[in-house]
Amino acid sequence: MIEPSRPLDALNKARDKRVIVELKSNKQYVGILKAFDIHINVVLEEAEERVEGELKRKIGTAFLRGDTITVIFPA
Amino acid sequence: MIEPSRPLDALNKARDKRVIVELKSNKQYVGILKAFDIHINVVLEEAEERVEGELKRKIGTAFLRGDTITVIFPA
Amino acid sequence: MIEPSRPLDALNKARDKRVIVELKSNKQYVGILKAFDIHINVVLEEAEERVEGELKRKIGTAFLRGDTITVIFPA
Amino acid sequence: MIEPSRPLDALNKARDKRVIVELKSNKQYVGILKAFDIHINVVLEEAEERVEGELKRKIGTAFLRGDTITVIFPA
Amino acid sequence: MIEPSRPLDALNKARDKRVIVELKSNKQYVGILKAFDIHINVVLEEAEERVEGELKRKIGTAFLRGDTITVIFPA
Amino acid sequence: MIEPSRPLDALNKARDKRVIVELKSNKQYVGILKAFDIHINVVLEEAEERVEGELKRKIGTAFLRGDTITVIFPA
Amino acid sequence: MIEPSRPLDALNKARDKRVIVELKSNKQYVGILKAFDIHINVVLEEAEERVEGELKRKIGTAFLRGDTITVIFPA
Repeated sequence: MIEPSRPLDALNKARDKRVIVELKSNKQYVGILKAFDIHINVVLEEAEERVEGELKRKIGTAFLRGDTITVIFPA
Repeated sequence: MIEPSRPLDALNKARDKRVIVELKSNKQYVGILKAFDIHINVVLEEAEERVEGELKRKIGTAFLRGDTITVIFPA
Repeated sequence: MIEPSRPLDALNKARDKRVIVELKSNKQYVGILKAFDIHINVVLEEAEERVEGELKRKIGTAFLRGDTITVIFPA
Repeated sequence: MIEPSRPLDALNKARDKRVIVELKSNKQYVGILKAFDIHINVVLEEAEERVEGELKRKIGTAFLRGDTITVIFPA
Repeated sequence: MIEPSRPLDALNKARDKRVIVELKSNKQYVGILKAFDIHINVVLEEAEERVEGELKRKIGTAFLRGDTITVIFPA
Repeated sequence: MIEPSRPLDALNKARDKRVIVELKSNKQYVGILKAFDIHINVVLEEAEERVEGELKRKIGTAFLRGDTITVIFPA
Repeated sequence: MIEPSRPLDALNKARDKRVIVELKSNKQYVGILKAFDIHINVVLEEAEERVEGELKRKIGTAFLRGDTITVIFPA
């Protein structure tokens, strides 16, 4: 029997890859997905903040609180 | 006795089918429903973001945080 | 002794009947109540979305996340 | 010793009486309180929706999700 | 050793006294504090609703849902 | 081994001292920190409400619901 | 086998270093990270509040409630 996949499996496959994380505020953070937990707290390395697609600043290792995240997808 | 159906049964039937997921922000994500959990965290494959019905961008495999979702229905 | 009724009993009586579900966003979904759970996640069949009372689109089987719902009543 | 009363006791006394339920959206629902639970999910019978004190529509048996309620008081 | 006081102790001392309860919506409710619970659901007797300090209406026994409350202090 | 400090330790050190508590609404409450709990419900004595830094009113013993608080710091 | 890192590990590495904490309100707090917990409640020492990048005031030891935080990164 094939076990149906769970949402966190998808995040696990994205580990060490570049992803885009969008917040409720519409800000985007782009970086390498290094860690996440069941609350969808996320850590990105080499992270950049973007506003409406434009680079705003480079912020290094960013801890993003899950509660503020809407969507995560490949960069 | 027929067991009354539960909401997650409906999502389970939609697995591997194309669905539309709407967020509180009014953004829509259209894609193939691959995974969900009890928080209604959802993973779509071949996902597209739409704003007011128009394709905004193709984003591949998207993890959508349940907390931001309002409604899910067939595409 | 008569057991005082609980809110979910009222939803249970509405099962397989047409109901109107209103969201915090003021959107209305009208359809046949097929399933609900303690989070008030709801599944409607033959669902229609209405905005300010006017039909916007027919969406089939809709999963509505409880967190976004304000009120449910008979259609 | 007199047991100090708890908030749900007050709702219990209001059972089968007409109450006004106000939501975060400022909508009011007036009806007979038939059921409630610890989440303050509420069922009103013969419910009416009012906006700024004026009758907007009669909606019959209404299930109101606790999360959206601010205050409940006698009609 | 003196046990440091806990926030609910302060509410307990205010029981049967007149208090002002402010909501996130900026509405104020003034009345006699009769009951509260750990969610800070509150029951006021002889309650009045005030908007920007002015009496809007007398509402009798009011159940206020804790989730909407910001501050409680003596009237 | 030195145990790393926890956030509530910082509040504990501020007990009986004057603090400023800011809410999501941008209101400030200044007073003597008498009690707090794990929800960050807070009780201030000799509390004053300030709006944009100006004294609005003196409110005595104030119970502030944790859910509305953003930051607490020394007055 | 290498244990995949968890988000709180990243915060732990930032302990005693200067970080920037951003809130949902867009306010920024800059200071030395002294403590955090699983709710992402955070304590900063020598904290400064910034609005749109400009120093607004120095506030000393600041307790920031996790619920209001969006992102934490190195200063």
